[in-house]
Amino acid sequence: MADTKIYQASTTAPVNIAVVKYWGKRDPKLNLPTNSSISVTLSQDDLRTHTTASCSSTFASDTLLLNSQSQDTSGARTQACFRELRALRAALEASNSSLPKLSSLPLRIVSENNFPTAAGLASSAAGFAALVRAIANLYELPATPTALSRIARQGSGSACRSLFGGYVAWEMGSKDDGSDSLAVEVAPASHWPTMRALILVVSAEKKGVSSTSGMQITVATSQLFQRRAEIVVPAAMVAMKKAIKEKDFESFGKVTMMESNSFHATCLDTFPPIFYLNDVSKAAIRLVEDINNAAGKIIAAYTFDAGPNAVIYYEEENTAAVAGVIKGALGGLEGWASREIEPKESTSLDARAVGVLRDGVSRVILTQVGEGPVRTQESLIGADGEPVKK
Amino acid sequence: MADTKIYQASTTAPVNIAVVKYWGKRDPKLNLPTNSSISVTLSQDDLRTHTTASCSSTFASDTLLLNSQSQDTSGARTQACFRELRALRAALEASNSSLPKLSSLPLRIVSENNFPTAAGLASSAAGFAALVRAIANLYELPATPTALSRIARQGSGSACRSLFGGYVAWEMGSKDDGSDSLAVEVAPASHWPTMRALILVVSAEKKGVSSTSGMQITVATSQLFQRRAEIVVPAAMVAMKKAIKEKDFESFGKVTMMESNSFHATCLDTFPPIFYLNDVSKAAIRLVEDINNAAGKIIAAYTFDAGPNAVIYYEEENTAAVAGVIKGALGGLEGWASREIEPKESTSLDARAVGVLRDGVSRVILTQVGEGPVRTQESLIGADGEPVKK
Repeated sequence: MADTKIYQASTTAPVNIAVVKYWGKRDPKLNLPTNSSISVTLSQDDLRTHTTASCSSTFASDTLLLNSQSQDTSGARTQACFRELRALRAALEASNSSLPKLSSLPLRIVSENNFPTAAGLASSAAGFAALVRAIANLYELPATPTALSRIARQGSGSACRSLFGGYVAWEMGSKDDGSDSLAVEVAPASHWPTMRALILVVSAEKKGVSSTSGMQITVATSQLFQRRAEIVVPAAMVAMKKAIKEKDFESFGKVTMMESNSFHATCLDTFPPIFYLNDVSKAAIRLVEDINNAAGKIIAAYTFDAGPNAVIYYEEENTAAVAGVIKGALGGLEGWASREIEPKESTSLDARAVGVLRDGVSRVILTQVGEGPVRTQESLIGADGEPVKK
Repeated sequence: MADTKIYQASTTAPVNIAVVKYWGKRDPKLNLPTNSSISVTLSQDDLRTHTTASCSSTFASDTLLLNSQSQDTSGARTQACFRELRALRAALEASNSSLPKLSSLPLRIVSENNFPTAAGLASSAAGFAALVRAIANLYELPATPTALSRIARQGSGSACRSLFGGYVAWEMGSKDDGSDSLAVEVAPASHWPTMRALILVVSAEKKGVSSTSGMQITVATSQLFQRRAEIVVPAAMVAMKKAIKEKDFESFGKVTMMESNSFHATCLDTFPPIFYLNDVSKAAIRLVEDINNAAGKIIAAYTFDAGPNAVIYYEEENTAAVAGVIKGALGGLEGWASREIEPKESTSLDARAVGVLRDGVSRVILTQVGEGPVRTQESLIGADGEPVKK
């Protein structure tokens, strides 16, 4: 008699925003990067993917539902994650015959983000981290976050960093098979819990170049890129780890801003050039410069991924001088209600930049450094194996 | 009895737009660059400075009038030009006692541009080239354009290239005294006379960082800059000279665009970052990309100096496919009347980019490769030594 049980496990996983940027693959198939990177994991209270992984002989095939939309699972990236996780489970089953043979059952994955997809926040990192973590939970794999990071990396490079909370490095490794291209903890969130992030969500006119294809063109055509990968980033890695260990915000902020600029510079040096920063992004940079100039030191640091949204890091003690001042300038936007921030008037801000931001920012997200994936009993799949209707 | 004669001579000098960019000084006082550069001299029919240099014992002091506005001549740059030219004249006078002692007389310089200053076109190149050439004419110096380029360079770096017509290299040199940092002809205008330029004058919201201070900050802070100066530009110099010699527009265009991008990438990599390109500039890049994609090859090439204006190079035979198509999209702008260009409909242009350009471009300038400084009898100073009233 066949086993018709519905096996399932659930997790949540966080978004991470890099402060030393990943840009460039030395192996596109394995998502092996041309340089190491470091990120801050953001709180799942504000931004997270919730994923339930289930398997059953009653399922017809592997499926993936994201925000109630059926997703293609036949892509090489998702397939690589399924294959690697099944291989680990198969090894467990081979060593212990009492274990149910889950590795051979079709998978049903159901996933939901608690943030608007339209916000243009890179959700693939949280998505693949949650997928890998949920299946690892389902399969009861004894794998560490670092071991799982090797698998999540193959789904989406930066996903490997979302398997940890706090401050996370993705060490590029040197092996051809990618076995040493892994995420490791630089410091837990508890080491430096006062790190805050304010995201200015910018309404982009249109979708920019995808990061996957953008990276490839940069590696192939930018004449400055090699310098970044070989000299600039290794130095930034050292400086950033030191800044995090010492909780030195000025160094953290300076490296964060220079790293973002360096990454976007190599995008501009790509041929044809890639532009992720627009005039609204530039106004956000000006805003941060004005805030820092008023403070007489770096108390806020901008960073931009492959899109126009600004992520502004600051420490809790500077909430008034950073988030308060920005709320004073851009108080009318959606998103401020999630935290108590006292709006503060400032005469230090460039009026033109504030005007551009008022027109071009669609909402703000207030968040902070947070924990890694958390196992949850809250399931997105019912006992009948069907996605839970909302 | 003192000589009270009014001595005078006049010249015109052209604007040049670099295709291999000058950015970075290794000696700010002497304007010695960190890399060589190449430019195309533009026709003086469209863009020129007209300068009359005069000297007389009746003048009280050195003065400079530009577009009827009195200019400060006490700056180190203007003083360097005056001093160097006077030294050459003094040497002539020492070797031939029959020559009038012009080197000791106060100078009166009157200068006029035939293009709107408000256009934001770097006029200092034409301005200093004209100033140096006019005084050299006044002093009857036997100096070659290359010899004068050493002096004009001290007024404004890129001015050294405006002493020649056609295609001009500024070889950076290696000596500390700058004696080998000179402009030389790559090819005369007659070698490749079909080169056209269409300038989209973009209304900038505000003045950007001046190129002098911008360069200094880039050299001090950009971690990618050294690579550009040492590796990228030397390779571009070789490729560009070859493209010009072979009249190979595809190579010329590709190097021109990549060079512009590389220069602006190092600006973005500066800390704090320098942005000269705005969303209108980016729309101009998109326009050129669309034109080239429609042609299936590079027939148009954008380049941007330290500001948002786009200069688009193309060959005469592609006037319809480049200038015609751009006029078809942006026909309502001032400046089209200077040449007969048939507007041409195109379905290949990105509608959003065209909209951004319609809103953000204030005028066009149609021009082409042209000659170097030309001596003229038309004087801006009357026989009485006073500026000619317009």
